[in-house]
Amino acid sequence: MTPLAPMPFPETSFALTLALLLLAPLAIAGVALINTGLGRSRSAAQSLLGSLVVISTAVIAFALVGSAFAAGTSGDHVFHLAGKAWNWAGAGPLFLSGFGAAGARAQLAVLCELLSVALVVLIPWGSGADRLRLPAGAAIAAIFGALVFPLVAHWTWGGGWLAQLGTNFSMGAGFLDGGGAAAIHALGGVSALAVVWIAGPRKGKFPREGLSTAMPGHNVVYVLLGCLIALVGWLAWNMAGSLLWLNAAPATLTVTAVNTLLSAAAALVATFSVTRIRFGKPDASLCANGWLAGLVTSSACAGVVSPLAALFTGLVAGIVTPLLVELFELALSIDDPSGAISVHGVAGLWGLAAAGIFAPQAGQFVAQLIGVSTLLGLMLPVVYLVFWLMNRVLVFRVDPDGERIGMDLHELGGNAYPEFVVHRDESYR
Amino acid sequence: MTPLAPMPFPETSFALTLALLLLAPLAIAGVALINTGLGRSRSAAQSLLGSLVVISTAVIAFALVGSAFAAGTSGDHVFHLAGKAWNWAGAGPLFLSGFGAAGARAQLAVLCELLSVALVVLIPWGSGADRLRLPAGAAIAAIFGALVFPLVAHWTWGGGWLAQLGTNFSMGAGFLDGGGAAAIHALGGVSALAVVWIAGPRKGKFPREGLSTAMPGHNVVYVLLGCLIALVGWLAWNMAGSLLWLNAAPATLTVTAVNTLLSAAAALVATFSVTRIRFGKPDASLCANGWLAGLVTSSACAGVVSPLAALFTGLVAGIVTPLLVELFELALSIDDPSGAISVHGVAGLWGLAAAGIFAPQAGQFVAQLIGVSTLLGLMLPVVYLVFWLMNRVLVFRVDPDGERIGMDLHELGGNAYPEFVVHRDESYR
Amino acid sequence: MTPLAPMPFPETSFALTLALLLLAPLAIAGVALINTGLGRSRSAAQSLLGSLVVISTAVIAFALVGSAFAAGTSGDHVFHLAGKAWNWAGAGPLFLSGFGAAGARAQLAVLCELLSVALVVLIPWGSGADRLRLPAGAAIAAIFGALVFPLVAHWTWGGGWLAQLGTNFSMGAGFLDGGGAAAIHALGGVSALAVVWIAGPRKGKFPREGLSTAMPGHNVVYVLLGCLIALVGWLAWNMAGSLLWLNAAPATLTVTAVNTLLSAAAALVATFSVTRIRFGKPDASLCANGWLAGLVTSSACAGVVSPLAALFTGLVAGIVTPLLVELFELALSIDDPSGAISVHGVAGLWGLAAAGIFAPQAGQFVAQLIGVSTLLGLMLPVVYLVFWLMNRVLVFRVDPDGERIGMDLHELGGNAYPEFVVHRDESYR
Repeated sequence: MTPLAPMPFPETSFALTLALLLLAPLAIAGVALINTGLGRSRSAAQSLLGSLVVISTAVIAFALVGSAFAAGTSGDHVFHLAGKAWNWAGAGPLFLSGFGAAGARAQLAVLCELLSVALVVLIPWGSGADRLRLPAGAAIAAIFGALVFPLVAHWTWGGGWLAQLGTNFSMGAGFLDGGGAAAIHALGGVSALAVVWIAGPRKGKFPREGLSTAMPGHNVVYVLLGCLIALVGWLAWNMAGSLLWLNAAPATLTVTAVNTLLSAAAALVATFSVTRIRFGKPDASLCANGWLAGLVTSSACAGVVSPLAALFTGLVAGIVTPLLVELFELALSIDDPSGAISVHGVAGLWGLAAAGIFAPQAGQFVAQLIGVSTLLGLMLPVVYLVFWLMNRVLVFRVDPDGERIGMDLHELGGNAYPEFVVHRDESYR
Repeated sequence: MTPLAPMPFPETSFALTLALLLLAPLAIAGVALINTGLGRSRSAAQSLLGSLVVISTAVIAFALVGSAFAAGTSGDHVFHLAGKAWNWAGAGPLFLSGFGAAGARAQLAVLCELLSVALVVLIPWGSGADRLRLPAGAAIAAIFGALVFPLVAHWTWGGGWLAQLGTNFSMGAGFLDGGGAAAIHALGGVSALAVVWIAGPRKGKFPREGLSTAMPGHNVVYVLLGCLIALVGWLAWNMAGSLLWLNAAPATLTVTAVNTLLSAAAALVATFSVTRIRFGKPDASLCANGWLAGLVTSSACAGVVSPLAALFTGLVAGIVTPLLVELFELALSIDDPSGAISVHGVAGLWGLAAAGIFAPQAGQFVAQLIGVSTLLGLMLPVVYLVFWLMNRVLVFRVDPDGERIGMDLHELGGNAYPEFVVHRDESYR
Repeated sequence: MTPLAPMPFPETSFALTLALLLLAPLAIAGVALINTGLGRSRSAAQSLLGSLVVISTAVIAFALVGSAFAAGTSGDHVFHLAGKAWNWAGAGPLFLSGFGAAGARAQLAVLCELLSVALVVLIPWGSGADRLRLPAGAAIAAIFGALVFPLVAHWTWGGGWLAQLGTNFSMGAGFLDGGGAAAIHALGGVSALAVVWIAGPRKGKFPREGLSTAMPGHNVVYVLLGCLIALVGWLAWNMAGSLLWLNAAPATLTVTAVNTLLSAAAALVATFSVTRIRFGKPDASLCANGWLAGLVTSSACAGVVSPLAALFTGLVAGIVTPLLVELFELALSIDDPSGAISVHGVAGLWGLAAAGIFAPQAGQFVAQLIGVSTLLGLMLPVVYLVFWLMNRVLVFRVDPDGERIGMDLHELGGNAYPEFVVHRDESYR
């Protein structure tokens, strides 16, 4: 992939990309609804209001600051090492100034990135459910919108060093990430891991004695409806991404759509079967996680593989996700209510690797592995460090009293469902 | 209608069809949400998880097997009778092999059919609410995805014998089904009837003495919200279908959209009035059924009639639907929680007939009647027989204990709303 | 802006506008869901069924009658004053006769107006929550669909006198309303004010002694999910409106989309901050109002301003909305459950004025002010008078007994959530 500006972009492709990008927020709505359904009823309003807050904050921060670093321009920040140019940050204008005069494709790239950063920040927000404070969510969103996401987006989409692995080191077409499996999902999953490490598990999740406590989502209908709404957003997102970041011709996009659908379907069937075998009955929330993991996998694969390969990659995602969710919880004592670490993080990385396995170009797999390694080896420690520092200043986690009464009453002064009677099971409340 | 392959398909039509097909899953999401809302709270998670399961199973079965039978190719399976060739099944490749190299239009047809089969299997699943087991739903979805739906789709969309009624017997343009009123809705409605016959009514629905028991849906907001979400999907579906199956030029599609909207609106007003006259107060669930019946009617009519005719056909659907739902329940002791037999079955058949009445071509009405007769006279007994045989092997209906505690606890081991207090009215639970 | 008929409309623009208009109902679904969530649980089914009823009634009335007055034709009704022609009503055909033969653009205009009138009538319906009767809602919808909305739409979109301010009096490009801030939102807000004046506040809202009673919405998740769903509809609506009513080239639309998103985001952040400062904690429902006010503002501005200006106009909307909601309630004893007077009315008028401030054309601000004055000075008294007369005949407000048991039981004979246990707090029920 090369910088965006000089590329021609025929009118039909432009109109199609634009129409598809408008649908992308349905993925955002779906993920936000899933997050809320997987949390507790007494934190439901805070979860969804927080979603609006992190989306808004990230979008504004990206528009004012981050878009400058994400852009691919002739004056990009570059350092030289081993005889090669390493393009590590864009140098576009601040405040989106001159936006209306930019090229059609550069404008679409900004719109796509605005929506992408809105989805990125939802992912750690969901993992911090029931204890992450609104100010922490907003601060994370601000720093992700202004700096963290723009850098990763620049490396992969803005003609940065990951995209240039192809031209610089003959690694296939350079790092490929059509639907945002790296810049959105893996980055979001990595951040989710950092958030739950720092915020710690919910009270009562891991009692001193005995097994961890199951804390089922308060509304499974929200969770499963969110899966269906997210599907529409994902279909559109993968196709818009293929047009924008993979230079796909419209005629090739039907395969992308079919792949997206098959990946989700295969993952759902796999998770259904795995949880049925593992627990005797299928688990609805884990099935939702599996479906979503299939979609996340497709974010990397749908534009570059065949339908059968999409079935296979989705199947693997659906098998691995419920096992990982359990492993993280039981073996590593990680309390991740939305399962985002597995669903967005691991499935995103798996998809990126799989895209390298199934892509026809020589060296593509190495390029993908370098991208995966960058997210795990560079972004995870960096994000953890940033969050650790932030947590010293504004405290991520609610105080115990607030956690006891619920985030809604504590942070908003009111419940999401003031007229409904809820159980008072004090064993873990 | 003739086989798809040789037809030219201009770029704008291609891009528009593709974008519209991405919206079609909103019809699926809407119907799934309506189904869940019309069932009981203690089966809500099973209803919606089951929706994901039947969608996924049907989609995979169609991709691996069914697409071969649905395709329109030069090597279609044909028998000769009365001096004519009867094209009864396609002969495309299994496993979608070579899909990426197929023509643009053939690819879009597969995408449309993948989404169609996902919607077909939701329809009987909704009618089996509160007692149909997940394995039964998955088995139905597998056989519909692999065989039943592909045949009907081939006959109507893949250049099969119903489509060839025009060229073979001068019956107008052959059997017309732009939006899937036959291959999706009437087929789904017919299957819903077979399911409820075999699964039987919910316990307590028809007590030994007295009238049938009203079992209101547990969340009317889901039902009515589903209606609004489904509208978007239907608008897109009817227009994509017109482009794909009726060879409509984009410029004619605005009428299709207006017709879809007017058909739903007229049906809603009609059902509102009928239930108000009949019961003294309008019935919200039946109004939702009416709205949906108007949309289903439009699946056949929207692409071929005028706005005034769309108003009229919707009006008729809205008048007939609530009366039929009552008739099926009281006179025939049929327990159809989602009303799918009337909403998808009868309204779909009515729409197909009405398309024949209002279409300008000579002989169109006869072609439509032959399609309607095929669904009722051939598909209903065949589907019933298939389900009867399946029921001997894997038992469609949950055991009485499972029905008493609810499908969620019985099949999933957990409730959809674990934190909310629900009424324990034991009269029929 | 000039009449629509003679304008050329390239194929890509046509297809894009059509695809975008199909998404517009998501704005309708979002607003309907927000209205329902902001009302009481015992009126939830009536709220959402009423939404379907008012949408359907308005759409049918517009198709049969109103479209004739909205159309821009060579035979428009004109009177002459001060040496100028004042075009005050269209003279198209009744019953959409000849619709299929109309020009592509005129057809799209009708589709856009059908969707617009459906959204207009939702706005006063939401403000009348918990006491406005279904027959009143339907009657309002009928008169708005047949007469009130068509006139305003004709003045602004159909080449009427407001649109001609540019050619007649050199006021910029004439009154500009790309996304319906005037014909939809300000008109709807003005009607909401008339409805609450006539229907009066809910029982217990303003007790004889002490402050007004807070009556929180019964489901904040619906409210906030509605915000996310509405976003997709708004993005599409603003872009379709720019194509249709501002003659925008597709290439300029990315800015419109970015502006829509930034306007909502800035408004949300502003309302969050204002309510946090004002009440100590952010208010979730008011934040939803703020987000929506940002979207409403963008309906006027998104197509004509820069991203920074969109941030600013959204910010102002988000600051003003919560203060106005409080002012209307405390100082003027207005009980507006959905906040529509501020959210749609004031934010719409602010957006129209702001579009005049930021638009480059000379005289544009005057044209916008004349439009704002027309809505406040002409439409508000006219609508109030019409409602006052209607109220004499069919009584807008439910009787006290009906209000006590809730609109669902009273008008529909059943609850939205029959299985859930709700609190019986008799202090204001």
